[in-house]
Amino acid sequence: MNALVSIILGSDSDLSVMKDATDVLEEFGVANEILVISAHRNPEGLSQHIKSSPAKVFIGAAGGAAHLPGVIAAQTIAPVIGVPIKTKNMEGLDSLLSIAQMPSGVPVATVAINGARNAGILAVQILATADGALQKKLVDFKQKMKEGVEKKSKKLQELGVEKYLSEKK
Amino acid sequence: MNALVSIILGSDSDLSVMKDATDVLEEFGVANEILVISAHRNPEGLSQHIKSSPAKVFIGAAGGAAHLPGVIAAQTIAPVIGVPIKTKNMEGLDSLLSIAQMPSGVPVATVAINGARNAGILAVQILATADGALQKKLVDFKQKMKEGVEKKSKKLQELGVEKYLSEKK
Amino acid sequence: MNALVSIILGSDSDLSVMKDATDVLEEFGVANEILVISAHRNPEGLSQHIKSSPAKVFIGAAGGAAHLPGVIAAQTIAPVIGVPIKTKNMEGLDSLLSIAQMPSGVPVATVAINGARNAGILAVQILATADGALQKKLVDFKQKMKEGVEKKSKKLQELGVEKYLSEKK
Amino acid sequence: MNALVSIILGSDSDLSVMKDATDVLEEFGVANEILVISAHRNPEGLSQHIKSSPAKVFIGAAGGAAHLPGVIAAQTIAPVIGVPIKTKNMEGLDSLLSIAQMPSGVPVATVAINGARNAGILAVQILATADGALQKKLVDFKQKMKEGVEKKSKKLQELGVEKYLSEKK
Amino acid sequence: MNALVSIILGSDSDLSVMKDATDVLEEFGVANEILVISAHRNPEGLSQHIKSSPAKVFIGAAGGAAHLPGVIAAQTIAPVIGVPIKTKNMEGLDSLLSIAQMPSGVPVATVAINGARNAGILAVQILATADGALQKKLVDFKQKMKEGVEKKSKKLQELGVEKYLSEKK
Amino acid sequence: MNALVSIILGSDSDLSVMKDATDVLEEFGVANEILVISAHRNPEGLSQHIKSSPAKVFIGAAGGAAHLPGVIAAQTIAPVIGVPIKTKNMEGLDSLLSIAQMPSGVPVATVAINGARNAGILAVQILATADGALQKKLVDFKQKMKEGVEKKSKKLQELGVEKYLSEKK
Amino acid sequence: MNALVSIILGSDSDLSVMKDATDVLEEFGVANEILVISAHRNPEGLSQHIKSSPAKVFIGAAGGAAHLPGVIAAQTIAPVIGVPIKTKNMEGLDSLLSIAQMPSGVPVATVAINGARNAGILAVQILATADGALQKKLVDFKQKMKEGVEKKSKKLQELGVEKYLSEKK
Amino acid sequence: MNALVSIILGSDSDLSVMKDATDVLEEFGVANEILVISAHRNPEGLSQHIKSSPAKVFIGAAGGAAHLPGVIAAQTIAPVIGVPIKTKNMEGLDSLLSIAQMPSGVPVATVAINGARNAGILAVQILATADGALQKKLVDFKQKMKEGVEKKSKKLQELGVEKYLSEKK
Repeated sequence: MNALVSIILGSDSDLSVMKDATDVLEEFGVANEILVISAHRNPEGLSQHIKSSPAKVFIGAAGGAAHLPGVIAAQTIAPVIGVPIKTKNMEGLDSLLSIAQMPSGVPVATVAINGARNAGILAVQILATADGALQKKLVDFKQKMKEGVEKKSKKLQELGVEKYLSEKK
Repeated sequence: MNALVSIILGSDSDLSVMKDATDVLEEFGVANEILVISAHRNPEGLSQHIKSSPAKVFIGAAGGAAHLPGVIAAQTIAPVIGVPIKTKNMEGLDSLLSIAQMPSGVPVATVAINGARNAGILAVQILATADGALQKKLVDFKQKMKEGVEKKSKKLQELGVEKYLSEKK
Repeated sequence: MNALVSIILGSDSDLSVMKDATDVLEEFGVANEILVISAHRNPEGLSQHIKSSPAKVFIGAAGGAAHLPGVIAAQTIAPVIGVPIKTKNMEGLDSLLSIAQMPSGVPVATVAINGARNAGILAVQILATADGALQKKLVDFKQKMKEGVEKKSKKLQELGVEKYLSEKK
Repeated sequence: MNALVSIILGSDSDLSVMKDATDVLEEFGVANEILVISAHRNPEGLSQHIKSSPAKVFIGAAGGAAHLPGVIAAQTIAPVIGVPIKTKNMEGLDSLLSIAQMPSGVPVATVAINGARNAGILAVQILATADGALQKKLVDFKQKMKEGVEKKSKKLQELGVEKYLSEKK
Repeated sequence: MNALVSIILGSDSDLSVMKDATDVLEEFGVANEILVISAHRNPEGLSQHIKSSPAKVFIGAAGGAAHLPGVIAAQTIAPVIGVPIKTKNMEGLDSLLSIAQMPSGVPVATVAINGARNAGILAVQILATADGALQKKLVDFKQKMKEGVEKKSKKLQELGVEKYLSEKK
Repeated sequence: MNALVSIILGSDSDLSVMKDATDVLEEFGVANEILVISAHRNPEGLSQHIKSSPAKVFIGAAGGAAHLPGVIAAQTIAPVIGVPIKTKNMEGLDSLLSIAQMPSGVPVATVAINGARNAGILAVQILATADGALQKKLVDFKQKMKEGVEKKSKKLQELGVEKYLSEKK
Repeated sequence: MNALVSIILGSDSDLSVMKDATDVLEEFGVANEILVISAHRNPEGLSQHIKSSPAKVFIGAAGGAAHLPGVIAAQTIAPVIGVPIKTKNMEGLDSLLSIAQMPSGVPVATVAINGARNAGILAVQILATADGALQKKLVDFKQKMKEGVEKKSKKLQELGVEKYLSEKK
Repeated sequence: MNALVSIILGSDSDLSVMKDATDVLEEFGVANEILVISAHRNPEGLSQHIKSSPAKVFIGAAGGAAHLPGVIAAQTIAPVIGVPIKTKNMEGLDSLLSIAQMPSGVPVATVAINGARNAGILAVQILATADGALQKKLVDFKQKMKEGVEKKSKKLQELGVEKYLSEKK
C-alpha cells in the first residue's frame, strides 16, 4: 500500500524520538514510510525522494540548524510537518526556531520540541479532512484521551497523593 | 458558501497582521470566515463557535500567553494552525512557545511569528490534499514565487546594487 | 469539609512536584483538593469542575504550552495561582511565559518554575486577608523560617565551611 | 478611608505604566494608595511603609534587577503582587525572572510584563474572596469583557476586514 | 573577470545590509557577484547556480529560519560564509542559530548578525591564504583600522567628551 | 593629576553612553581619563596603555562580542569593571554574557547593560575602601538619592497620579 | 582578626559553590567571614549584619530571583560583589540578570554564574588597590597561572592528544 | 612539516571536544598543531605564538566569555575559525555569542557549539581553495558522507524501526 505519510529524518539518531510518529500512524491505520535523508549530506537524494513519493503529507525531523522540513517544503506543495529535535545543546531552541520561522510563501507546520507523536496525530488530522473513517477514529481517540485523564483523577481522589505517587514508581 | 477555513483572533489588535491570512485564502478562492473570540474573555462563545462551524481547518492567532490555538485544538478534531502574534514584549518568543509546545495528544500546527500569510497557505495545502484544483493552483503559486525571485535577481544583475537599492526606495 | 483551595494538574506527571502545595496547605490546616484535569484533553471536565468547586482559590500547574491556569482564570472570578512546571525541554521558560504573560483582564498569579510550595503559601496568604487565625500562623511561619536560617548561619560559624559541608552530606 | 491595596513603585518612571493599576482599583471602588519607594535607594523608608500600611494586598512594580516585590514579600505576610516593568534592555525578561523566580517560603504573585491592569484586577480578586459585593462586581466585569469582544466580532462580520481596519485607525 | 566570491541573498530585502559585503570586496579588488536566490522559493535555481559558479568562496545571507547558507554548503566543497540577517522578530537569534548550529560534516562559517562587512573581509582572508598581494592588502587594512581608532582616541583627549560628542552629531 | 580611573571604550560609538561614567567620577572629584582603544583593532595600543597607566581601577566598555574588559583584566592586577553596551542586536545579552562569564582566575566586575553611571560609582566605592573622604561623599550620595525618591513620593501623594504625570511631560 | 571580606549566602545550598571564595581568600591571607543570611527570610538579620560588619568588601551569593547582593548594596557604601548561583532551572540566567541589571545608583560587581573563585579574587584586587603586599601576591598569582597553562601546553606537545587525554582521566 | 592549521585551546578541559578537529585534519592529511594558550591567563604567550606560527588558518576554541578566537583574529590576517565550547552553564549560548558577534573589521568564522569536527573541515575547505588535491579529497568526503546516510536509510527500510533501534543499542 502506498505511504500516505512520509517521515524523513535528518539523522538516524533522531529515530528513537520519531518512532512515536510511526507508532501513532500505525494506531490509526495510516500507511507510512520512514527514511533517513539528511538535507545537508544528501540533498539530491532528498529531492529525488520528494518527487517520487506518493505521500500526501510529509513529516521532517531535524535538530540544531534544522533545515530539513523547510527544504522539503521548498520542493513540494504537500503540507510539511516539522519536528524540532532536541540535541545536546541549546535545549532545542535552535531546532525550534530553525523550523518555525520559515519565510513567507513556504510554511512548515511546526510541532513541539521532540513532539513526534503530535506530528503523527496532526498528519492524521490533515488526512481526515477528507476521510470520514479517520474522522471517526479521531473522535474516539479524543474520547479515550479524556477518559484516560478522568481515570487518573478519580484514582488520585481515591488513593491520595502519597499512595498514588508510590504506586506510580 | 460555507467557510472551509475559520480564522479566530484573540483580539482585534491582531487583525492587521491576520489580514494576510484572509487575503491569501481569497487569492486561492477558499471560502473563509474571520472572527474575534478571546479564549480568555469569551471561552463559552469560543466553544459554541467551534462546535457550530463547518470549517475543515481552523487558524488561531494570539499573542503573549497565547492559548487560543491550543484551546481550539482541545475542542475539535480538525487540524488547527497557530499564528504566534508579536506583541510589545519578549519579541514574540512568549507567543511562539505558548503555541508550539503543546502536550502530546493535542497538536497545533505552528507557523512563524506573525506568519499569517503562511497560515493561510498551509490551510490551502491541507485542503489541497483532497482537492486537485487547489493542487494545481499551488503548483502555479510556487512557480510564480520562483519567477518572482528570478526576476529580482536578473534585475539586480542589470542594475547593480546601488541602482537597485535606489529604485526600491 | 469543603476545599478552600483547589489544585488542578495538567498531568499526573506533575504530581511529585505539586505535592509540596498540598503539603504546605496541610501544614496550615487549609482544606484542599487535588485533581488531574488537562485543559487540552478534558476541557469540558475542567469547566464542570470550576463551576462546581466551592474553592476560594485555584492553583493550576502545567508545563510546556501551559494553558491550564489561564483557562481556569477565564472561567472563574476567584484568584488563580499558576505553577510553571519544568518539563524536559526549554528549562521551564516555555511554561513560565505561557502562564505569566496573560492578556489584560484575566490575570494569573504566577510563581516560580516548579514553585509548588510557594503556590500553597500564596493561597494561604490570600485566604489570610480575611482570616485572623491564618494570619497568626503566617507570622509564626515567617518567624520559624527566619530562625531556621539563623540556626544554619550559627552552625556554619561554629563548624567552619569544610565540617559544615561534610556533615551536610 | 484606609487603603486596602498599596501600590509601590521602584521609580517614578514606572508611573505611566502603573496608572492602569490605580485606574482599575478605582473602577472597582477599592481604596488604594500609590507611592514611589525604591528598595535599593530607600530600603528603610520601604520597611517603615510596609510596617505602617493598613493595606491587605501589596503591589510592587520594578524593572531590571527588579527586587522591590520580593523585598516587600520578605517583610509582610500579606499577598504581594509583582509587576515586571519593561525597561530599555532585555525586553523585560530580566524584570520577569527577578520577580517570578522567588525562593521557597516567600512567594510573589507575578503578572505579565507591564501587566499593571491585571495586577489591579488580581488585587480585587484577592479581596473579593471575602467580599460578596466585590464578587458581584467581578461577575459584571467578566460579563462586560465578554460582551466587548462579542461586539467587536459582530462588527467585524458586518464591516469586513478592510472597513473594520480603516474605521479603527 | 570571473567572480571569486559569490554572494547569494535569500531575499532582496537583505540587500541594503549585504551591500557592505560587496563594498569591502571592491575595496580589496576581489571580483564578486551578488544574486537573489531563495533556498525555499527557488531551490533548483540555487542548485544550478552553485554548480555553475566559478566562485572559490560563497557568502549566503538569510533571516529567520535562515537555511540558505547551509543549503549552499550541502552542495559545494567551497567554504561557505553565513550572514544571519536580523528580521523583524527575535532580534536575529533565530537567524544566528539557524546558520551556526550546522550538523557535523557540513560547516558554515558564521559571522555576526548583519555582519555583512565581516563576511566580505573573511572571504578576502580565505582567498589571501594563497595570494600574497591580498595578504599585503590585509596588513595595510589592519594598520589603517588601528590608525583610525588611534586618531579618534587622540581627538577625544584633545576635545574632551562633550565637545567630541557635539562635533560627532 | 594622575588618573585614578581609566575608562577605555571599544568604539567611540559607546561614548554617549559612557559619558555617565566620567560625569559621576567628576561629581566625586576622582581624577579619570577616557580613551578609545579597541581590543580587536588595536591590541598593542591597548597593552601599552594598560602597562603605562597609573590608574588604580579600569573601566572597559564594549558591545557585541565584548572582549575589551576581559582583555584588560588579562593584563593587569587592578580591578576591572566591565560595561556591556547595548548594540543594535540581541538586546545587549551578547555584551552581558561576553563580559560576565569570564573564566576562573580573571574576574571582571560586570555592571548592568549600559550601566555606565554604576561603573563610575563602583570605581568610587573601590577607591573609597582606602579613602575616608570618598567614604563620606558616598554616604552623602546615598542620603541624597534617598531624599530624591522620598521627595518624588511625597509629590505624588500631593498631586495624584494624573497631575504628576502631566507635570512630568 | 577583623574580617576584611564578608561573604553572605542566601542559602546554605550555595555553600559548596561558595567555598571557592573563602579558599582563595585564605590563599591570599585575607581575613574573611562567611554567613548564611537570606535577604527574603531574614531581612532584619541581614541589615544588622551589614551595619555591624567591619568588612571593606561584601560578597553576596544567591540563585533564582537573586536579590541578596542588591539588597546588601542598598545598605552599604562598600563595594558589593554578586555571585549568580546556578539553580535547577533556567541555567542561571535568572540569577545573572537579577544581580547584574541593578538600577542606577546602586551597583553590584557581578561575576560569572557560579564564579565564586573570581568573586574572591576580585575582592583581593579591590583591597590590593591600597595594599602593596597584596599587589605583589596578585602579580605572583598571575605569573603562576600563566606558568600553569604553559606547562599544560608543553605537556600536550610532548604527549600528543590521545596520551594527554588518557593521562587526564 | 610546518603546521598549516594551528588549533589553540583556552583550556585543556576543551581538549576532549577539540580532538575531533585534529582527527579530521589527520584524515585529510593536513599538518596541524594543537596548543593550550589561554587569552586571559597567558596573553603574551598567545601573541608570541600567533606571530611565530607558520599556520595559514587558526582555530580557536573557548567557552563562557570566549574571547580567544577574537583575540587571535585581532593579531593575524589569517582566517580564524571559532569553536564555542559548551561549559556547565548557559547551554553554550554565552560561548556562541562571545565568538560570533565580533565587531566590524575583525571577523571570526564561527561554527556550531562544540563543532570541533566542522572547524577542522572548514579549515580544510579554506586550504582547498588553492589546493587541487585537497579539493578532490573533499569531493570524496562528501560522497562518502552521502553514501553513509543512504546506507542507513536502506538498512532502516529493511529492518524496520524496532529492529533498527535494537541493533543500534
